[in-house]
Amino acid sequence: MEARREEKTVNGINTEQLFKTIELIKENADIAKFKFRATNQWINGTHCRATVKDFFGALKEDTSREQRVFDMDEPPVLLGNNEGTNPVEYLLVALSGCLTTSLVAHAAAKGIKIKRVESRYEGDIDLQGFLGLSEEVPVGYQEIRVYFKVDADVSDEQKEEMVQMAQKFSPVFNTITKSAPVSVHLET
Amino acid sequence: MEARREEKTVNGINTEQLFKTIELIKENADIAKFKFRATNQWINGTHCRATVKDFFGALKEDTSREQRVFDMDEPPVLLGNNEGTNPVEYLLVALSGCLTTSLVAHAAAKGIKIKRVESRYEGDIDLQGFLGLSEEVPVGYQEIRVYFKVDADVSDEQKEEMVQMAQKFSPVFNTITKSAPVSVHLET
Repeated sequence: MEARREEKTVNGINTEQLFKTIELIKENADIAKFKFRATNQWINGTHCRATVKDFFGALKEDTSREQRVFDMDEPPVLLGNNEGTNPVEYLLVALSGCLTTSLVAHAAAKGIKIKRVESRYEGDIDLQGFLGLSEEVPVGYQEIRVYFKVDADVSDEQKEEMVQMAQKFSPVFNTITKSAPVSVHLET
Repeated sequence: MEARREEKTVNGINTEQLFKTIELIKENADIAKFKFRATNQWINGTHCRATVKDFFGALKEDTSREQRVFDMDEPPVLLGNNEGTNPVEYLLVALSGCLTTSLVAHAAAKGIKIKRVESRYEGDIDLQGFLGLSEEVPVGYQEIRVYFKVDADVSDEQKEEMVQMAQKFSPVFNTITKSAPVSVHLET
């Protein structure tokens, strides 16, 4: 990130801490290695419950956060009872948070003050994949479309640059668009 | 999915409705085409808020669900205030729900009764990617590991098959491991 250190907090991001962290990582790259975690318990039918609490990062375990719980379920048309938002919708939630945070943080690092950021997400899934009815149809999202509105005192070109930065640096965006290996193990 | 139609509900899944839906999709593939959606609004710093409500599927818009709201934020070590679970953790939540639901639904279609399913998730992210400090480090998850425990009156081999089925048919698993195109547009 480019340094512009006049102000310590831009867009609610403590850029002084950000630049200090970057210097520390340049000295010891292990500081940048994070492990994030979740658990899941099946409830019934298409209803299950995930939890998130601890993580590893900046060389240590963090168990200080309260546990958060996320119910997931399908709507009746997908054989559920609407006990929660469904998993593919959670993926869009994750993508939305990551693109937004990446946009705001990288703008802050450049000293660009943002007034407002809104975005909407739509993704296509053909259930012939999930149901095993077609080998040609992708099982996952076929395409996801994202629409951003950014309010800041900069040119449209600079806004476009911010949206490009969000894509370049968002971990969830890059996980989805570039793929990541997932190993699944059965514990007996 | 293989049909075994003696029982109408297995693992809380109405398999009669499932098999009926499959027959309908074989007659009209458009029934299987779903669109899922989310919106996001930046709050401040690394804190933003997503909402999920309507979707399109089975040939029509569904606006019947109540809107659900998801706050996302980073922990202090990542410049946030813990106002919510972070976006990369939401990705693990999504993955957990999708693998679990896929496992349970495909077992139900085969008539395999499940007593309990638990799983845990851990993913590695090197923030040198997000911070633009290294071109070699992936920006997204480098690897995600999943550990399942399944309680059912079947052999370990059959449990292993169930875990394989979950991976084969889970939309979120396949989005992450095979990638999906995401187009990001700036609305001016």
